[in-house]
Amino acid sequence: MFGFENMKISSSAATNPVINLDQGDPTAFQEYWMSTKMKERCVVVIPGWDLMSYFSDKTNVCWFLRQDLAEAIKALHRAIGNAATEERYIVVGNGSTQLCQAALFALSSLSEDKPLSIVAAVPYYSTYEEEASYVQSQLYKWEGDARTFNKPGPYIEMVTSPNNPDGTIREPVVNRGGKVIYDFAYYWPHYTPITHRQDHDIMLFTFSKIAGHAGSRIGWALVKDIEVAKKMVQYLTINSIGVSKESQIRATAILNELTKSCRIKSESFFKYGNEKVKSRWESLRWVVDKTGDKFTLPDYPLAFCNFFGKSSSTYPAFAWLGCNKDKDLKILLKEKYVLKRGGERCGSDKKYVRVDMLGPNKDFQDFLNRLLTIKYPRCFL
Amino acid sequence: MFGFENMKISSSAATNPVINLDQGDPTAFQEYWMSTKMKERCVVVIPGWDLMSYFSDKTNVCWFLRQDLAEAIKALHRAIGNAATEERYIVVGNGSTQLCQAALFALSSLSEDKPLSIVAAVPYYSTYEEEASYVQSQLYKWEGDARTFNKPGPYIEMVTSPNNPDGTIREPVVNRGGKVIYDFAYYWPHYTPITHRQDHDIMLFTFSKIAGHAGSRIGWALVKDIEVAKKMVQYLTINSIGVSKESQIRATAILNELTKSCRIKSESFFKYGNEKVKSRWESLRWVVDKTGDKFTLPDYPLAFCNFFGKSSSTYPAFAWLGCNKDKDLKILLKEKYVLKRGGERCGSDKKYVRVDMLGPNKDFQDFLNRLLTIKYPRCFL
Repeated sequence: MFGFENMKISSSAATNPVINLDQGDPTAFQEYWMSTKMKERCVVVIPGWDLMSYFSDKTNVCWFLRQDLAEAIKALHRAIGNAATEERYIVVGNGSTQLCQAALFALSSLSEDKPLSIVAAVPYYSTYEEEASYVQSQLYKWEGDARTFNKPGPYIEMVTSPNNPDGTIREPVVNRGGKVIYDFAYYWPHYTPITHRQDHDIMLFTFSKIAGHAGSRIGWALVKDIEVAKKMVQYLTINSIGVSKESQIRATAILNELTKSCRIKSESFFKYGNEKVKSRWESLRWVVDKTGDKFTLPDYPLAFCNFFGKSSSTYPAFAWLGCNKDKDLKILLKEKYVLKRGGERCGSDKKYVRVDMLGPNKDFQDFLNRLLTIKYPRCFL
Repeated sequence: MFGFENMKISSSAATNPVINLDQGDPTAFQEYWMSTKMKERCVVVIPGWDLMSYFSDKTNVCWFLRQDLAEAIKALHRAIGNAATEERYIVVGNGSTQLCQAALFALSSLSEDKPLSIVAAVPYYSTYEEEASYVQSQLYKWEGDARTFNKPGPYIEMVTSPNNPDGTIREPVVNRGGKVIYDFAYYWPHYTPITHRQDHDIMLFTFSKIAGHAGSRIGWALVKDIEVAKKMVQYLTINSIGVSKESQIRATAILNELTKSCRIKSESFFKYGNEKVKSRWESLRWVVDKTGDKFTLPDYPLAFCNFFGKSSSTYPAFAWLGCNKDKDLKILLKEKYVLKRGGERCGSDKKYVRVDMLGPNKDFQDFLNRLLTIKYPRCFL
């Protein structure tokens, strides 16, 4: 059911070790933090007597949010220009995963109609379905593809932009006055042009996918309505009594570094990150091209990026790789000891897989090599 | 609904600042970690490039648990003798709060009958009711007091020992072959005699209440059945994709220090902690005694503590303070600007309140002083 079931599959042939590009573990960026320039920065030192209380600021709606993290979040959004933070409540969570569930809880608790329908346009982030279903809540109900959703009454639409898994720029598709949760995990300039400052009622961000610190489990929501923010905090209080203070001070240090150096060409993470992801995409497109017309990749339009001050394309954190024939691409790749998330997990077709573009260099290179060797894949026989 | 609604109530009189002993924030122990001996120990240093992955050990059922934390947990249980760790899976969570919900999910998912009844003997930890109810899951249903529970079929009984809020040593009371989740948050030698090594199917522990590090949000479960452990990990994966790595390395450092010094008289946290809580209990009993027969406190039997090698009483982290007449003690104390958790929140009577015994020294002292001034409380008029 959940997204980590591929972890233990191991290759029988030592010469063909399994490459797991299913899980989106963003370790590619570690090299930036290990570089000579960065290695000594953002070191966090925590004495044994520090960070002992449950509380950060008892006067804040989000009482477990550290004030310095709130400031760091606002400063980074201001520097990048990707989201409005004014007149909003910041709610911190154990990753945006937990915040998404907090938002579902908040919106459905405040709705008169229950269970509230939850939808997302196909292909969607596979975890949404799991998050909306696993505890079998009577507050909300997963209803699948937003494009075919026609149930009357209130609903919540999940909008991820750029989208996970296919990298497209998304807007709501139902548009019948329901609630929208915007997931902007990838709305950062290394992945996609920052065309405007997002300004919506509920916007989710994750620390994991900005510069690769997934182990910290930090996410935040920018929330306009105080009642929604309060209900989200209620969820986080009952669910985990808040969020690790250690992770919060580490996220603060790293976000502040990202802000400080974002305009310094030789240091900017976003410049480095953009070059990194772009170069991987160029390699992947070259390989896909080399294999003839067997595979497909989405094309992304150019757009002017306000942050970089120039036109650019989108270089998503995942590649939505397709097979030109109606076959199960995940199984085909598994035969080559390459693990991906199958398209049907995202409400889509088996002929697609989601490929993690942020894995270790060696895994990515090995994947390209194996893709190149697929001369006569079974799906074309 | 949830346990932090008292946070914002502030006193109008500056001379009578509000004392909030509702929330169980264990900051009393901070003085130990700030002492000259301890101040330089357990300092955790985290460089910017470290702890970036979601994963800790992909071969482990609990793939996000750091191996060094697992070792530290086992070593401390061995040193204290309070729980069996052999042939068990360790599942780490964002506090034992999240683990409790993971266990409810696991046991009910694996049960053929749904919703599974959840019960706890009155007075119970008020949060259990909230945890079992807030998402309105169809997997399980809160059924209240275990002592009056007579619904046929499978069930889960929560057993907290020593109990929160009243400090009593608890055993299951339903005993009809249902599942039991043991919460041993307070089964440590500074609070209660370690009379035997606990050895049950599901045992929960929290880092928060051992030596006061509530801000880290770390808890662990010792689980016998691999299927239960796997389902708990599934919950934690969908709920928050695991647990902060920063908190895990900090918990590792502190648990290792607790183990290393636990037999060194001049350094042992447990010796210090026992003296601290015992002295607070002696002060509280003295004050309650001074006020005549207005208030009640539970009596605890002496028992031989295997860890300290001598007989001792229980000194719970909360005091279950009663009022000898049938009045609302919480309201009475609120008039004295003292906030407590009312007994009815724990499924019990308004004439009881739960008093946090681990708050700051000044708050505790002020509370005692105000209790002393209650000469003719309204509940006796």
